[in-house]
Amino acid sequence: MANLIGSEVLQAFSTYATIVVLKMLLMAPLTGYTRFTRKAFANPEDTAHGKTPEDKKKMLRADPDVERVRRCHQNDLENIIPFVIIGLLYALTGPDLSTALLHFRVFVGSRFCHTVAYVFTLPQPSRGASWMVGLISTLSMAYRVLSTVLVL
Amino acid sequence: MANLIGSEVLQAFSTYATIVVLKMLLMAPLTGYTRFTRKAFANPEDTAHGKTPEDKKKMLRADPDVERVRRCHQNDLENIIPFVIIGLLYALTGPDLSTALLHFRVFVGSRFCHTVAYVFTLPQPSRGASWMVGLISTLSMAYRVLSTVLVL
Amino acid sequence: MANLIGSEVLQAFSTYATIVVLKMLLMAPLTGYTRFTRKAFANPEDTAHGKTPEDKKKMLRADPDVERVRRCHQNDLENIIPFVIIGLLYALTGPDLSTALLHFRVFVGSRFCHTVAYVFTLPQPSRGASWMVGLISTLSMAYRVLSTVLVL
Repeated sequence: MANLIGSEVLQAFSTYATIVVLKMLLMAPLTGYTRFTRKAFANPEDTAHGKTPEDKKKMLRADPDVERVRRCHQNDLENIIPFVIIGLLYALTGPDLSTALLHFRVFVGSRFCHTVAYVFTLPQPSRGASWMVGLISTLSMAYRVLSTVLVL
Repeated sequence: MANLIGSEVLQAFSTYATIVVLKMLLMAPLTGYTRFTRKAFANPEDTAHGKTPEDKKKMLRADPDVERVRRCHQNDLENIIPFVIIGLLYALTGPDLSTALLHFRVFVGSRFCHTVAYVFTLPQPSRGASWMVGLISTLSMAYRVLSTVLVL
Repeated sequence: MANLIGSEVLQAFSTYATIVVLKMLLMAPLTGYTRFTRKAFANPEDTAHGKTPEDKKKMLRADPDVERVRRCHQNDLENIIPFVIIGLLYALTGPDLSTALLHFRVFVGSRFCHTVAYVFTLPQPSRGASWMVGLISTLSMAYRVLSTVLVL
């Protein structure tokens, strides 16, 4: 056990996986913040601070800024979780530390760029390119996993 | 291998992770049940039991109760999967069994409260508070992971 | 470490988990392809190739084919990630290789069937049945995990 986490590649994986999952978790408070500043909620029980019933009803709406943050969060779920799964299996195949660090750093960096590009509406292809860079890192690790341990 | 799963912390993690993932999996049948009782479907091929074409068309709609269950499911995805990822890395850092159990129990308990608060529309802050308690447990484990194994 | 990945069950798990996660990752390019062919986008910055402002505005819409691919992707997230989590814990309990392979093959096969049934709108119960078969495989592994390592 102590041995397992003693592997430097697994330590590096743990570090980067934790950082990028924390980044993903922060999207929820960001959604909440955008909901409060835009006064746009999904649940009737969240509009209790409205003064009149009409006020409360008006707050039950979809706001473009809220939807943007939610799409960014969804994209994180669709990409960061596959990275963590494949990255863990990749770390267990015993790659060079420097190669592994390259994969982890490129992926995590690309996701921070993706979030900035999405939330601040930077012109394309900034968002598409950062998504693609992260995907290529994940695919490259998946190739290493399959070429090392293929048992069908 | 036998050794690995022999660690009591990892056994406790496996138990709580499996329970909370099973809870998440049950949201899908609950969505299906709500779709059938509310007659609200997303796919035309799911309305074959309608008698007339108008009947079938009317069933293709978004229902508030169905959307509520789906938001609860989505919130599970956004919180339970990060718990499992960070919880596994945390278990590998070799924490005290009692500290680990505290984290796992608080998180899993908070998610059951969250689901009840969401599905039965309990007044706030029940839903928000249970979400927050689970998040704090995950953040506390992430802190332990990063302070133990940081390799950048 | 080398020992860990040396276990044949874990090698089989790594293979099937990687394959099914790659399948899930491919849903994103498929969504993108459908968005381009249907000219239906979610973000204003994605419509820069439109010629006139009215053209660009018309492209900001929800298209039934795009929504179908997105629902399929969401269903993958809701089912494939629980399979990977529970499958990893299951692999660590040291099951027979043949039993483990049966679970992995049934699950991965069912998800490919599910995607085909969803994207090509095959009549029910093809989609529902393939979803159910995958779920049963995951539940069966969860039962084995809980009956082997239960520590509450």
